[in-house]
Amino acid sequence: MDIKQYTQNIGRQAREASRLIARADSSTKNHALIAMARAIQRDGEKLLAANAEDMEQARAKGLDAALLDRLVLTEKTVAAMAEGVLQIAALPDPVGEISGLHYRPSGIQVGKMRVPLGVIGIIYEARPNVTADAAALCLKAGNAAILRGGSEAVRSSQAIAACVREGLDTAGLPETVVQVIETTDRAVVGALITLTESIDIIIPRGGKGLIERITQEARIPVIKHLHGVCHVYLDDKADPEKAVRIADNAKTQRYGTCNTMETLLVAEDIAQLLLPPLAKIYTDKGVALRGDEVACNIIKKMTPAAEEDWHTEYLAPILSVRVVKDIDEAIEHINTYGSQHTDAIVTEDYGRIRRFLRDVDSSSVIVNASTRFADGFEYGLGAEIGISTDKIHVRGPVGLEGLTSQKYIVLGDGNIRA
Amino acid sequence: MDIKQYTQNIGRQAREASRLIARADSSTKNHALIAMARAIQRDGEKLLAANAEDMEQARAKGLDAALLDRLVLTEKTVAAMAEGVLQIAALPDPVGEISGLHYRPSGIQVGKMRVPLGVIGIIYEARPNVTADAAALCLKAGNAAILRGGSEAVRSSQAIAACVREGLDTAGLPETVVQVIETTDRAVVGALITLTESIDIIIPRGGKGLIERITQEARIPVIKHLHGVCHVYLDDKADPEKAVRIADNAKTQRYGTCNTMETLLVAEDIAQLLLPPLAKIYTDKGVALRGDEVACNIIKKMTPAAEEDWHTEYLAPILSVRVVKDIDEAIEHINTYGSQHTDAIVTEDYGRIRRFLRDVDSSSVIVNASTRFADGFEYGLGAEIGISTDKIHVRGPVGLEGLTSQKYIVLGDGNIRA
Repeated sequence: MDIKQYTQNIGRQAREASRLIARADSSTKNHALIAMARAIQRDGEKLLAANAEDMEQARAKGLDAALLDRLVLTEKTVAAMAEGVLQIAALPDPVGEISGLHYRPSGIQVGKMRVPLGVIGIIYEARPNVTADAAALCLKAGNAAILRGGSEAVRSSQAIAACVREGLDTAGLPETVVQVIETTDRAVVGALITLTESIDIIIPRGGKGLIERITQEARIPVIKHLHGVCHVYLDDKADPEKAVRIADNAKTQRYGTCNTMETLLVAEDIAQLLLPPLAKIYTDKGVALRGDEVACNIIKKMTPAAEEDWHTEYLAPILSVRVVKDIDEAIEHINTYGSQHTDAIVTEDYGRIRRFLRDVDSSSVIVNASTRFADGFEYGLGAEIGISTDKIHVRGPVGLEGLTSQKYIVLGDGNIRA
Repeated sequence: MDIKQYTQNIGRQAREASRLIARADSSTKNHALIAMARAIQRDGEKLLAANAEDMEQARAKGLDAALLDRLVLTEKTVAAMAEGVLQIAALPDPVGEISGLHYRPSGIQVGKMRVPLGVIGIIYEARPNVTADAAALCLKAGNAAILRGGSEAVRSSQAIAACVREGLDTAGLPETVVQVIETTDRAVVGALITLTESIDIIIPRGGKGLIERITQEARIPVIKHLHGVCHVYLDDKADPEKAVRIADNAKTQRYGTCNTMETLLVAEDIAQLLLPPLAKIYTDKGVALRGDEVACNIIKKMTPAAEEDWHTEYLAPILSVRVVKDIDEAIEHINTYGSQHTDAIVTEDYGRIRRFLRDVDSSSVIVNASTRFADGFEYGLGAEIGISTDKIHVRGPVGLEGLTSQKYIVLGDGNIRA
């Protein structure tokens, strides 16, 4: 197969389909989504059978447990996938929303209208559920989508793609609104991210290596989801009970997520009070602690942290701990070592809260709550396609609104410029 | 000079300065802007002398009239430059604005805070006034800026840069908040657009060639301002008087601007009525007309348009004219040949207005008014750094808001995730 021609053809079809889906009304899009969810529910066994084949191949290739964990589908996850699509159908349609219309001295009325981005290319790992989520989010936001999932999930993804196509078909929309790449040839990725004439934006979801490669090679704007080196700073004006509760939850509620705390910063004046009970909680839950010199002096069980630790997203029951002088040193540490993902402060001091909110340059800045809240569902976006660590277009959890932009509209009555 | 080291050093200084300017309060930023404007007013003669040297060199090199026209400063343009900076000082500060704070079922309160982008690199032609505009807009939006103007304007730009530095200095801000590149070595451009660690966004302003080169080679997100192939569609339900007035103004009010109409589309049922009076107006004003077959049959003086004409931004007293069947054919033409910049319809029909607003995929879509309104000042943004023809982040005129983005903020009372 000629990969260049293959992707160009897919791109051309997506561009054509994007014009139709951009003007589809809300009820048509919701009709497609509901039909898609019903097909997933009905075809549950087919999906599980396809997934079992993917799993078998993956095991035969000796792929690691983390990959198998992402790849596997169960009755429960299939049901959740269908439920997720139905939730997206229930969200308000962002497309066409007009805001800010106001009169100008010239007599024209100027405002903005929310519009789809066009064609979105999504490159992701072997997570079959992303195929359903991404298809549903792109469609609802009026975009055509080209989805390229990890090759290990190809059978599961294609089984889901059949449900997506059925949904589109039922609503009278072209099946090319969502195209799921069938070939596992890796050259497709390189071809897609340079298809400037047919794709408006690339969203990579996956490990740091994948995302850095795509950012380097793409000739199309990219919405990146880089890693999360998230911090909680326990200020000396913190309520100790809240501090312990939040520092516990931010680390131990789930270890493998990007909004999990990886480094705990504690003000020196409160370190003697807070570190012993926290160390006990972490140790009881099996979290290994790596501390700076002061922290290691307070908690003898800690191993010394290396410079590298402050940069590391463990995604595991490991936590680095640093005792800082004050909020200034905490902010300096976060802006130096963090990944501009999600960072929290625990304090009751009004001025410090204002300063932390302003000066921490991260996509989510949190006061007196766990970093684990940083996701689309918790924020009320309904669903997310990822968490942007970029600075332009959209920061933080990307939901329907992040898959649109705003154009200007001008209403006049024959006005001309003097 | 080692260009790589030189730009890395500038980038490092800009990154440091960006942290300070991001947290500067409104009155400090305004203080700097007002001092900058006063320095420009006071140094008027110095600026004109520096500009006279640039002009002399440019003439000696035999550069064309259009370039000389952009390069020249007069007492009037210097006064306008200072006035522009004062207007930016008077605009509301976008930084820190908190919006949409709402409670979630978990008890956290989620909202967004507007924040600077960080370090902005602006690559532009030999237009000295851009140095002042860009410096003022970036500073007000809390960003550090690296400005690289056309080499023909280097003396004028450096004279303006001295005023910018004086303003920063007066307000106690580091002079590195705005750095204007002194060397005319073209290798600086290539070095800047790949300085991923120090620059957050590149805004190129200039001809199509420059922008395409930068888009190709940049490793940093780019906000593009491509060319404007703008249309006015005169519908058969148009008010004839408004139609003639708007079609006249959109073409002849100024020829060299990107929001000038380049192609006139006329519905066939109204072409016999509208084309003769319009042709007379255009011909009297010296506009050459290039028409499709039907248009040429109505107006014998027209020369036949070639396929290339529909793609062309003339920036000159030339207009291509096409007679279309109806609004569908008009929209199809605009979405095929246009540059997603600015397009207008003239009609009194409600349904067609709704359709045109929805289906024309351009950064400004205008009803019953001239395309010439598409600029930051007319839209009420106060000033603009360009007109984005991109689809992400910002479309249309880019003012202060386009130089910022929004991060999420979360306010809690000890909330943890269940």
